[in-house]
Amino acid sequence: DMVSNSHLYQEIYEQPQVLRQVLEKESEDIQRLADAIQDRNIRHVVLAARGTSDNAGRYAKYLLGMANGLVVALATPSAFTIYKRPPQLADSLVLGISQSGKSPDIVAVLAEARRQGALTAAITNVHESDLSHQADFVVDLHAGQELSVAATKTYTSELMAIALLSASLASDDSMLQALRGMPETVASTLTINEQVVEVAQRFRYMRECVVIGRGYNYATAFEIALKLKELTYTIVEPYSSADFLHGPLAVIEHGFPALTVIPSGKMLSEMKQFMGTLKDRGAEVIAISDDREALGMAQIPLELPVTVPEWLSPITAVIPGQLLAMHLAYIRHYDPDKPRGLHKVTETR
Amino acid sequence: DMVSNSHLYQEIYEQPQVLRQVLEKESEDIQRLADAIQDRNIRHVVLAARGTSDNAGRYAKYLLGMANGLVVALATPSAFTIYKRPPQLADSLVLGISQSGKSPDIVAVLAEARRQGALTAAITNVHESDLSHQADFVVDLHAGQELSVAATKTYTSELMAIALLSASLASDDSMLQALRGMPETVASTLTINEQVVEVAQRFRYMRECVVIGRGYNYATAFEIALKLKELTYTIVEPYSSADFLHGPLAVIEHGFPALTVIPSGKMLSEMKQFMGTLKDRGAEVIAISDDREALGMAQIPLELPVTVPEWLSPITAVIPGQLLAMHLAYIRHYDPDKPRGLHKVTETR
Repeated sequence: DMVSNSHLYQEIYEQPQVLRQVLEKESEDIQRLADAIQDRNIRHVVLAARGTSDNAGRYAKYLLGMANGLVVALATPSAFTIYKRPPQLADSLVLGISQSGKSPDIVAVLAEARRQGALTAAITNVHESDLSHQADFVVDLHAGQELSVAATKTYTSELMAIALLSASLASDDSMLQALRGMPETVASTLTINEQVVEVAQRFRYMRECVVIGRGYNYATAFEIALKLKELTYTIVEPYSSADFLHGPLAVIEHGFPALTVIPSGKMLSEMKQFMGTLKDRGAEVIAISDDREALGMAQIPLELPVTVPEWLSPITAVIPGQLLAMHLAYIRHYDPDKPRGLHKVTETR
Repeated sequence: DMVSNSHLYQEIYEQPQVLRQVLEKESEDIQRLADAIQDRNIRHVVLAARGTSDNAGRYAKYLLGMANGLVVALATPSAFTIYKRPPQLADSLVLGISQSGKSPDIVAVLAEARRQGALTAAITNVHESDLSHQADFVVDLHAGQELSVAATKTYTSELMAIALLSASLASDDSMLQALRGMPETVASTLTINEQVVEVAQRFRYMRECVVIGRGYNYATAFEIALKLKELTYTIVEPYSSADFLHGPLAVIEHGFPALTVIPSGKMLSEMKQFMGTLKDRGAEVIAISDDREALGMAQIPLELPVTVPEWLSPITAVIPGQLLAMHLAYIRHYDPDKPRGLHKVTETR
């Protein structure tokens, strides 16, 4: 099976080990960052990120909001770089997330934040990067070199770093305990590969789809959509189920594929109701879930083998999406490691 | 021409008059809201909105950030309604934007903000609505009843309300002066209808496209994409040019349609460079612009007849998009007033 020779495949399977490294090596530094946030009585976070890292930022927006009461805003980098009219950041934590630590616009947001006296932090895979040089605190992703252009192991590593920060801020031992089980859980979740291989052929000629998640898994919907776009050139739109009902629902016609991210938790019943709406419109529903009923409602169920607390479900629920995008790229004779027109480091200003 | 009998057509053409009403009747109330923001020394804004109003929120994020130094976060309504773990809002302005003032999740965000003692405000077309009852300040859109499901006049009216708030906060007479010219400018911009009619046929069989804008017109890209989805059922993805380069660029193949929003201003040269990237990939570029060179680079130029300051360009640049979506709906034999599966008021929790 040639797909297993790709860097992408290897990197997807490295995820348990990378998560273990982050837990082992970054917990103390992340606790120090949490202490600095509390010492300065910070209530606001501004996130700067692009692409996959921006999707990790979407997770941070929900988790730091719900577990830590922080108001999280995504930065508008062009306000810093093109318009040169940045907002007032002095009372915020400004957090840059970037695998390479190189994109000039993300670096510019942190540099301006530091100039204004804000607390700055970087989550990056490159310890000595332009981004980390602008940060008071640097969190390493410990992913090793990521050779595939499509990010996988750095994404889940970013989620782990954010989850650790949230647990540290909350001083919540049960959260930390749950986090320590995640490398093993991700290893078990990778067994879903067999199910994905079985269904991937079905999507060979799929031109368009939507990916729907809400709450914690709003981020997962965006990240799975991005993997499908990068690797398979499918036209994919990610949505929260609520946003989708405010207009985009109109595009759904009979047979339209809708991938739903629907793990156990507080969002489950809301998402099941939404699945019903999709089915009423004749959509073909693919469900990533550990819930029997949700899986039973889907034409294409992808069963998550392990149930985790909902706030950690984005770390497992993205995996079937990563695998589906990889296999679909292979089935379509695309190079899973080198998507057309993309480079590993994208520098935007 | 039957399309001119639709509510949608009428409402698009009512926009100059609606903007005039907002200027005349809301300037004083908006100044009072601005005074309250300054009296409380507020530096942070949390926006709650869905659909078209969320796109107006995207404009607010840039304008209030760049002209007024405010950090603007989009709310995560499910944190309030489903998870019941809202963030700490006491030091923020929490602003709900909703044509109907009815969506339960948006109302819930304002109710919680008020409970926490935050300053609350509503921008709505229904003065006595659930939303306005939770707001310390209510800004009316003066759009009259909007009968078409797809929002047009309430969108530009929301932009006007936000622009007035920004000018009032800045105590900037030149901004206020520029705003006073906008009803006339929008009336002139509507003459672009002739150009749109000429090109609309070309897109009869377009299945997918992307819409790109950045900075102030990030909002415009999202709103034009939403109109095209709601009215024509095209699969449309909106992006900032920077986000697009971080992955989604891979979907562009020869002939892929890309609608760019590229008015004069500080973003112009950046967007021209991006247009070059699209053309290198063989995309079919449609440009909404008042800039000769940008129009010359596009296969399909849509020339904005009036040049306005960049911060006001979203009010004019959306109009060709509204018109294109309307004509394309008509050409495809869809009802421009009643998109399939949608209702005028969408209630999500």
